[in-house]
Amino acid sequence: MDLDQFTRSHFADASAAYEDAAYVIFGVPYDGTTSFRPGTRFGPRAIRELSFNFESYEPAAGIDLADVPLADIGDIEPARLPDLVALQVREVVADLARDGKFPILLGGEHTVTIGAVEALAPDCFVVCDAHLDLRDELYETPYSHGCVSRRVYDAGVTNIFIIGARSGCAEQYAFAGRVTLYTADEVRGRGITAILREIVAATAGKRTYLSIDADAVDCCETPGVGTPEPFGISTYDLREVVRTLAPQVVGFDYVEVCPIDAGQTAAVAAKLIREFIALRWKKEVVGGDQT
Amino acid sequence: MDLDQFTRSHFADASAAYEDAAYVIFGVPYDGTTSFRPGTRFGPRAIRELSFNFESYEPAAGIDLADVPLADIGDIEPARLPDLVALQVREVVADLARDGKFPILLGGEHTVTIGAVEALAPDCFVVCDAHLDLRDELYETPYSHGCVSRRVYDAGVTNIFIIGARSGCAEQYAFAGRVTLYTADEVRGRGITAILREIVAATAGKRTYLSIDADAVDCCETPGVGTPEPFGISTYDLREVVRTLAPQVVGFDYVEVCPIDAGQTAAVAAKLIREFIALRWKKEVVGGDQT
Amino acid sequence: MDLDQFTRSHFADASAAYEDAAYVIFGVPYDGTTSFRPGTRFGPRAIRELSFNFESYEPAAGIDLADVPLADIGDIEPARLPDLVALQVREVVADLARDGKFPILLGGEHTVTIGAVEALAPDCFVVCDAHLDLRDELYETPYSHGCVSRRVYDAGVTNIFIIGARSGCAEQYAFAGRVTLYTADEVRGRGITAILREIVAATAGKRTYLSIDADAVDCCETPGVGTPEPFGISTYDLREVVRTLAPQVVGFDYVEVCPIDAGQTAAVAAKLIREFIALRWKKEVVGGDQT
Amino acid sequence: MDLDQFTRSHFADASAAYEDAAYVIFGVPYDGTTSFRPGTRFGPRAIRELSFNFESYEPAAGIDLADVPLADIGDIEPARLPDLVALQVREVVADLARDGKFPILLGGEHTVTIGAVEALAPDCFVVCDAHLDLRDELYETPYSHGCVSRRVYDAGVTNIFIIGARSGCAEQYAFAGRVTLYTADEVRGRGITAILREIVAATAGKRTYLSIDADAVDCCETPGVGTPEPFGISTYDLREVVRTLAPQVVGFDYVEVCPIDAGQTAAVAAKLIREFIALRWKKEVVGGDQT
Amino acid sequence: MDLDQFTRSHFADASAAYEDAAYVIFGVPYDGTTSFRPGTRFGPRAIRELSFNFESYEPAAGIDLADVPLADIGDIEPARLPDLVALQVREVVADLARDGKFPILLGGEHTVTIGAVEALAPDCFVVCDAHLDLRDELYETPYSHGCVSRRVYDAGVTNIFIIGARSGCAEQYAFAGRVTLYTADEVRGRGITAILREIVAATAGKRTYLSIDADAVDCCETPGVGTPEPFGISTYDLREVVRTLAPQVVGFDYVEVCPIDAGQTAAVAAKLIREFIALRWKKEVVGGDQT
Amino acid sequence: MDLDQFTRSHFADASAAYEDAAYVIFGVPYDGTTSFRPGTRFGPRAIRELSFNFESYEPAAGIDLADVPLADIGDIEPARLPDLVALQVREVVADLARDGKFPILLGGEHTVTIGAVEALAPDCFVVCDAHLDLRDELYETPYSHGCVSRRVYDAGVTNIFIIGARSGCAEQYAFAGRVTLYTADEVRGRGITAILREIVAATAGKRTYLSIDADAVDCCETPGVGTPEPFGISTYDLREVVRTLAPQVVGFDYVEVCPIDAGQTAAVAAKLIREFIALRWKKEVVGGDQT
Ligand SMILES: [Mn+2]
Ligand SMILES: [Mn+2]
Ligand SMILES: [Mn+2]
Ligand SMILES: [Mn+2]
Ligand SMILES: [Mn+2]
Ligand SMILES: [Mn+2]
Ligand SMILES: [Mn+2]
Ligand SMILES: [Mn+2]
Ligand SMILES: [Mn+2]
Ligand SMILES: [Mn+2]
Ligand SMILES: [Mn+2]
Ligand SMILES: [Mn+2]
Repeated sequence: MDLDQFTRSHFADASAAYEDAAYVIFGVPYDGTTSFRPGTRFGPRAIRELSFNFESYEPAAGIDLADVPLADIGDIEPARLPDLVALQVREVVADLARDGKFPILLGGEHTVTIGAVEALAPDCFVVCDAHLDLRDELYETPYSHGCVSRRVYDAGVTNIFIIGARSGCAEQYAFAGRVTLYTADEVRGRGITAILREIVAATAGKRTYLSIDADAVDCCETPGVGTPEPFGISTYDLREVVRTLAPQVVGFDYVEVCPIDAGQTAAVAAKLIREFIALRWKKEVVGGDQT
Repeated sequence: MDLDQFTRSHFADASAAYEDAAYVIFGVPYDGTTSFRPGTRFGPRAIRELSFNFESYEPAAGIDLADVPLADIGDIEPARLPDLVALQVREVVADLARDGKFPILLGGEHTVTIGAVEALAPDCFVVCDAHLDLRDELYETPYSHGCVSRRVYDAGVTNIFIIGARSGCAEQYAFAGRVTLYTADEVRGRGITAILREIVAATAGKRTYLSIDADAVDCCETPGVGTPEPFGISTYDLREVVRTLAPQVVGFDYVEVCPIDAGQTAAVAAKLIREFIALRWKKEVVGGDQT
Repeated sequence: MDLDQFTRSHFADASAAYEDAAYVIFGVPYDGTTSFRPGTRFGPRAIRELSFNFESYEPAAGIDLADVPLADIGDIEPARLPDLVALQVREVVADLARDGKFPILLGGEHTVTIGAVEALAPDCFVVCDAHLDLRDELYETPYSHGCVSRRVYDAGVTNIFIIGARSGCAEQYAFAGRVTLYTADEVRGRGITAILREIVAATAGKRTYLSIDADAVDCCETPGVGTPEPFGISTYDLREVVRTLAPQVVGFDYVEVCPIDAGQTAAVAAKLIREFIALRWKKEVVGGDQT
Repeated sequence: MDLDQFTRSHFADASAAYEDAAYVIFGVPYDGTTSFRPGTRFGPRAIRELSFNFESYEPAAGIDLADVPLADIGDIEPARLPDLVALQVREVVADLARDGKFPILLGGEHTVTIGAVEALAPDCFVVCDAHLDLRDELYETPYSHGCVSRRVYDAGVTNIFIIGARSGCAEQYAFAGRVTLYTADEVRGRGITAILREIVAATAGKRTYLSIDADAVDCCETPGVGTPEPFGISTYDLREVVRTLAPQVVGFDYVEVCPIDAGQTAAVAAKLIREFIALRWKKEVVGGDQT
Repeated sequence: MDLDQFTRSHFADASAAYEDAAYVIFGVPYDGTTSFRPGTRFGPRAIRELSFNFESYEPAAGIDLADVPLADIGDIEPARLPDLVALQVREVVADLARDGKFPILLGGEHTVTIGAVEALAPDCFVVCDAHLDLRDELYETPYSHGCVSRRVYDAGVTNIFIIGARSGCAEQYAFAGRVTLYTADEVRGRGITAILREIVAATAGKRTYLSIDADAVDCCETPGVGTPEPFGISTYDLREVVRTLAPQVVGFDYVEVCPIDAGQTAAVAAKLIREFIALRWKKEVVGGDQT
Repeated sequence: MDLDQFTRSHFADASAAYEDAAYVIFGVPYDGTTSFRPGTRFGPRAIRELSFNFESYEPAAGIDLADVPLADIGDIEPARLPDLVALQVREVVADLARDGKFPILLGGEHTVTIGAVEALAPDCFVVCDAHLDLRDELYETPYSHGCVSRRVYDAGVTNIFIIGARSGCAEQYAFAGRVTLYTADEVRGRGITAILREIVAATAGKRTYLSIDADAVDCCETPGVGTPEPFGISTYDLREVVRTLAPQVVGFDYVEVCPIDAGQTAAVAAKLIREFIALRWKKEVVGGDQT
């Protein structure tokens, strides 16, 4: 891994050197295909800033993040053409995988997920998102934030679970028949616990990637996103997803934070990334295998 | 030159010509009597801007708004004296009624509702509002945002249902005995479904007008309003009101959006106006009569 | 010149002279030790501004605040060294106690609470806070917003009830064994009513001080605070605390409002302070003794 | 309790009681007829807040404002109909004149000036403004911010000097032939000193009122106004106007500050009001007569 | 229904139908390759909004814009790949040229200029810009805001005049030897009048395109741009450019307005576009031929 | 130097390792004694963010910053008591001096300068500031942003040159007799060149420290400061100070940037720091003395 390609800046308590790290955070400040409101390029910066709002000790796990081998290698400098950005991310994540690191990607728009999934080639893809992201193309490019789950599907990862969606064109809703869709209303109606039980059962023993598009959450709770949708899942639902899947996934990203609010969207992101790492580390430390 | 490739600023998917439209949106950017925080004059603009955040397809109705005969004729240029604004709105809505159009009014402060109700002379008035709006006069004028439901009452529409109120002086609470009041705490306690059942029963077969003052919702969910009140109804309660009453009302307005937040208040407004139109159109298309 | 036609900037309806007042509001615009985001010095101003957003009549109590002997004596000009600020507050609250006034303190950062508790020397301390505030020292000073409950404990007020906490280092969680801790998740799980029942039983007949750190509430509801934490208690939980304890406490403060949001955090503060006063006054007027 | 240790929100150093004051500040937080951007109702609050940014000592005059008999009596609660607001201001200023006080009015929109001029009936009216304000009516009302200088003219004060104007309809430019107009470009070309020499000569021995519409200044220097115009006079030009005319005018207002910027517009206002008072007091103290 | 009473969102006073228009405004809300701060996609909207801040009468020209055959056809919906955006613009401007309309393009980032120049194939290119924009490629794409003047040069329009530049890499400064560069310091030192005299002489009788990148102006005057540079030309310099060249150019754009300030940057843009149109129309009306 | 005490983040093009660096940037995000508006703790972050707005090539010097041995070691974590912060800074700067590095300090409030001057013990102190900063104590502490120049004087550096001041109490103006004061009006009147000639003459051959308090500049140009003052020096004056003194000073800081504006204040800071470094490096490289 050539660390010179990254700019410095860091997530709180990410004090390990790259060589010693088990978890590696990096950012992709890209928002070149955004539909509604740009600014997700500032997502990595905002999440890092808010990460300093929290104590290093995570009470949910009983873990102090300062004790975790966590590195933050900074941001890549993204290209402006989205297919090239996907390529950049793919190479970084492939490098991380080769070096035995667990990748934690901070977006940037959702497009950045594509390269990470391509690099890891998981069996399953769990995504929290207000949008189906199943378009084949948007605004003349197939590498768009509106095509993420479709690109993942086309990459052969057809075992897709979408949580919290409530927006898409008729064609996307039709295509959604090929994946497992839990709409936000369904999450609200059935409860996230029941849904996660199904997902855990379906992904047991399989290599799974977890992608969180911040707009999955109701925009009245976390308005700092590029394409805000009301009537979403709650931050508690999202926390349950993270707590449940953290110990078992092979890759993780948190994208689409657009810091135009009072910081609450980035605060939720930073907090859940911290819980993700602490809970995962706790499991590794206390034993039990890990996917 | 093919002019269809250009967007004009309007509500998203409002692509019909006035002549062909069944639904007509117009705005009244007026905030001349505001008490606390001005800026509701920018409400129509904000709602329109946020309307482009959404897909044209409304999954709740299975309707694509691009298929609905919907026109947006823009904003009137309001006078500065509130009684004249009421008059302006009355004339516009009367014209719309004469032309057989369903009016959808975007405020602006709540005062703009008065003229619409006067023009349509409905039997019943259902209003979601944090405030009783039952003053006879406020700051030396009877045409004030604090007198809306009172003006409606005085216009002979005494069959009034107020949902979500939690603010008023003692005199207004006394006057509220003449109308049906569901406070926000009562909505929270009994559930909006039970309350809507009562309202539907009471308004069955009657011409009903629906007015949504955005401050009905808890200001911690949607802070972008002129007079923010905490401890309100939820956006889900409001959605239930819209979904239930959309098919049966004769006029509709959404007022008091003051876009000083990160867009969530206008996002809820735009989304609910979209659902209102889609659900209503669905009913008209699939048959069944309409109030 | 009739000076009564003019408003001076103060808390709305605080129309009594100091001599005639039973309740006295004052502000401490201090934010000198803030960790994450400064600006709580503007908390008193913001709470006062938002207080004018509300009707003088409080429907929950059936009391018009204009009828309550309430004074707002303004802000002290705080020193810059936090130990001196604590001293300033202690002297003001001691003066108020000597004059038979009930003190209502508007922060500023939580540090300002220390002096008030020292002056009143209550038996019990009930605090709503996202943070344990049990550090012995933070950033080289023991008079820090991160040490408030610890200073209270060290001042001999060891009967401490913390509601809503979800952040602290391991040492603070260890120390928390000496106090009664209701975490935010516990409030969410058991319900605030059950918890308040315990607190009321434990504090019965004892002199109790109530301190509200605005960050107790989930930052997705009220993001305008200095150290925003998600996954907190709700505004409804906080209202229940205020409604339950208002009639019985000997001192009250509302701190850590940092007005960088659309006003919702200050709106909740102003509303709850109004309810606090109205409910307490109602009890005094209708009889029954008071701690 | 020593109440003097507390600050009440007012203009900094306005420490005199009304009875003892020679200068009396009051605010009119009215913005009911605003054309472009509302918010001038927050002008008085912003100017007062920024006034605390400055030392009490004014080096230009060698005067400490704390030594000047200056009172701030707060804001009137304005009506919502602009003709009533003019009436309110007229009565306040008439009261002040009767009590022998020099009035300093903080707007609010420019409409508030009308009542002050009516009350004082000066011989001359000097106004700094980007706009001619010579319309006979705007948006259906003659009491509008666009009609100020015209109302003054119609009130018989035809000796009008407009400094910095660069906007008006053709009719207003025609009407401007009856007054003395120094456009912003002329100020820039000839220099403010030469122009002020003419004005001082023309108003010598006459009772003159000075009104400053904050938008006279180039909006790239002070963007916090209701109707921002580039290519205006500079803050230095405005300071020269204030320094030159302060000792001789009979009434003074500073209006149209709309605090949506980083505070610079209110900072200029507060600073110039402070210089106005200090320079005028210096002249009164050191002798010399005063108009 | 009289639809003329409603405003559609467009540039103020752009009341002509496309068929009747001599001047046609359109927007390209594209910011896909922005380096520093996104948001220029909101430039067209902001300029239009601010355009309503001004009187329809332009005193500099003695022309009322309402009398000018001016149309605003709205915004194109841009692709996300910058080379496609250039293509879109080229086709629109070619259509406008074919229809005999004078094009006025509102950006959007500077990249949008490329297509307009390609369509019009002028002899000369005059650009006000803080940046040389002479890179051959930036972030993996030759169609970037950092390559505008280079693309123009490569398109054969080598007669380029850059006014106000103060930023570029060494390679760009080397390439600048092939064009005529007037740095901001040179403008300040020699005066814009002398420089314009040279440009007018050099472009006499030639078909010239004028492109204004808003960041040419000092960012302390107009900070609302994507890549703010201090030590720039003044708004007065820019006005002089517009006033001088308006009557003679064959195409005009105003780009890179990023509305994150208090509106001053868009106010300058709207004002100068209005002056451009008014002055040009004045010349056409009073006679004299036009390039 | 223990680099672990610093948090990472960096100034653009600061690519050297500490060991190899000739210039070392570090930040002190402290705003504990701020009078008016807090937030200068975010100054270092803002200056660094804006530093990426600029090309690495500095045309004024013909130097590419990427070629300069420049390191950014990040921010210290400041204490909350201002005397301790002064101590922290003193130790860092002493370490830098011992290691032969040229220190460039990013504030934070002006208080941070004290420790740097104490560490370097220069012969002369040149400070650009709106304020005299000559108080002996402010708000109960002698280590305050209002006492900086006084602390420097008391540390024995009595050869002080204050440029741009326009605010202070009478006592400070009296004390100013012991230093050389060039008020903002004098800079405007005489021109900065003449004044700098005097300063250069007076400091020739002496070890001089240069401190820039961002509020020296007129707040209408750069409003993002803690205590904004209009009628200041221009950014061009400040550039002249930097260009003139850069080659000869022994220490440099840029303080009091409070990023609440659209970025222009931090843009000026970042640009001038870049010019400072480039011009100084140019001289070191080409050798020879300086004007
Ligand atoms: Mn997505
Ligand atoms: Mn999404
Ligand atoms: Mn209402
Ligand atoms: Mn309401
Ligand atoms: Mn606390
Ligand atoms: Mn707390
Ligand atoms: Mn005016
Ligand atoms: Mn004006
Ligand atoms: Mn450019
Ligand atoms: Mn540029
Ligand atoms: Mn200073
Ligand atoms: Mn200063």
